[in-house]
Amino acid sequence: MPQNDPTTPSAFDTATAVSRAEGGALVAELDPGWDVGGGILNGGYLLSVVARAALLDSPHPHPVAVSASYLRAPSPGPATLTVVPGPAGRTLAHSVVTLADAGGPALTANVTTATLGTAEPEYSHPVPDAPSVEECFSVAEHRHLAPPGVQVPGLSLQVDTRLDPATAGWAFGQPSGEPHLRAWMRFADGREPDPLALLTFADALPPTSFAMGDLGWAPTVQLQVLVRALPAPGWCLVEARSSEIAGGWVDEDYRIWDSTGRLVAQSRQLARSPRR
Amino acid sequence: MPQNDPTTPSAFDTATAVSRAEGGALVAELDPGWDVGGGILNGGYLLSVVARAALLDSPHPHPVAVSASYLRAPSPGPATLTVVPGPAGRTLAHSVVTLADAGGPALTANVTTATLGTAEPEYSHPVPDAPSVEECFSVAEHRHLAPPGVQVPGLSLQVDTRLDPATAGWAFGQPSGEPHLRAWMRFADGREPDPLALLTFADALPPTSFAMGDLGWAPTVQLQVLVRALPAPGWCLVEARSSEIAGGWVDEDYRIWDSTGRLVAQSRQLARSPRR
Repeated sequence: MPQNDPTTPSAFDTATAVSRAEGGALVAELDPGWDVGGGILNGGYLLSVVARAALLDSPHPHPVAVSASYLRAPSPGPATLTVVPGPAGRTLAHSVVTLADAGGPALTANVTTATLGTAEPEYSHPVPDAPSVEECFSVAEHRHLAPPGVQVPGLSLQVDTRLDPATAGWAFGQPSGEPHLRAWMRFADGREPDPLALLTFADALPPTSFAMGDLGWAPTVQLQVLVRALPAPGWCLVEARSSEIAGGWVDEDYRIWDSTGRLVAQSRQLARSPRR
Repeated sequence: MPQNDPTTPSAFDTATAVSRAEGGALVAELDPGWDVGGGILNGGYLLSVVARAALLDSPHPHPVAVSASYLRAPSPGPATLTVVPGPAGRTLAHSVVTLADAGGPALTANVTTATLGTAEPEYSHPVPDAPSVEECFSVAEHRHLAPPGVQVPGLSLQVDTRLDPATAGWAFGQPSGEPHLRAWMRFADGREPDPLALLTFADALPPTSFAMGDLGWAPTVQLQVLVRALPAPGWCLVEARSSEIAGGWVDEDYRIWDSTGRLVAQSRQLARSPRR
């Protein structure tokens, strides 16, 4: 496992950096390396950028709830972020963030910030059984096996994704028929998970329709991520399921557990289902 | 079962009406009868008002995804709605809606509209087993049984709620310890469900923490509702579960099936857990 060099910022921190330009505008440089194929940037990656912008002026250090509408796919390169602060209290603060590129607004998000901890839960869903990381299937190492027409995304080089073989049959032409995927995840350069990272992980699996044998892109329409606790260092277990595929729409429901088995994030998105 | 009189608007349609005032501003009259106790209006009810505002200028007739941050509880009475339209295409349209009362903004929402149908799903979670409506427990009819300190909300007179006895033990001082509630719902005046109604139903059960024996209010911080299909007439089955209660936060996950057993809506919210 590569280790973080504390003197070098991680790929994730560099790719999601938000800074204040002269005149006060918030700017980012969207990194083409965090794509899902075809130059389309990952929706979770964009959410991490948006949350960083919200945190700059927030009295609280962590995103706890972020929900975004994806208006259009922004181009890699310069982007601006507009943060409209809402009420801020002792427990939490709200803001609305818009991410725009040269083509105009691409994403609007409600961001709620607060202070997360690691307090023992009063109630928690247990972590599911999953094979060890070593027994799982590295997406990056098997990119040469990608079926014709399937482009292995840049995202899978940034986020080391180890699919549970029980949900990886589609990669070998044997889809399970169940819209269910499960994988261990961590950043390829060893950067440890935190709430900002969980926003990216919460949309980093292939579309659940892959497990049904539909290997097309499923563009996100709206995505909500809840971050529930500070994740422990190490691999996160990430699970995605769909409840209904109908009329050209699909939902994806993620749960993320940290290396101690603690539920640390949940997400739900509505996406367009891949064209057949 | 009372029937809709087609010459009289239903209580829901009246309470969620949005109109254009002189000068073009969108206004609503928030109805104190849709409260959850203590003059606090139900979050799902507010979402229905917000979606109506978004539909006024949308090329599409139905809300398919609505996610809102609850900034502060608005007072019953006059409210204004500000709709900022985003991109609109042949399949869907986006907008950002802000609901404000005299005290300022109370709710900001991302609204996605589209045209829903009743197409047979390619994949769908089956409806859970539940006793018939007649075998379930009417919240309105048993309001005199409310434990000391628990105010039966106005909402429960508007939305006829019949709790599955398996998840109603808390009402008799026998909490199950599982944050899980299930009930049949329909409007008390017989108005049939539609996508706008599902936005209200998606937050109309008591807090799941009631099933744990915590009978306090759990204020919604952020709520996302996805509407998946046009519901058939009749009762809807509404189920809420929590995955984690920790550090003063609780999630609530709803699924709603129509009278034919079709999954028609899903929601997830982050709320503050009741103070003990």
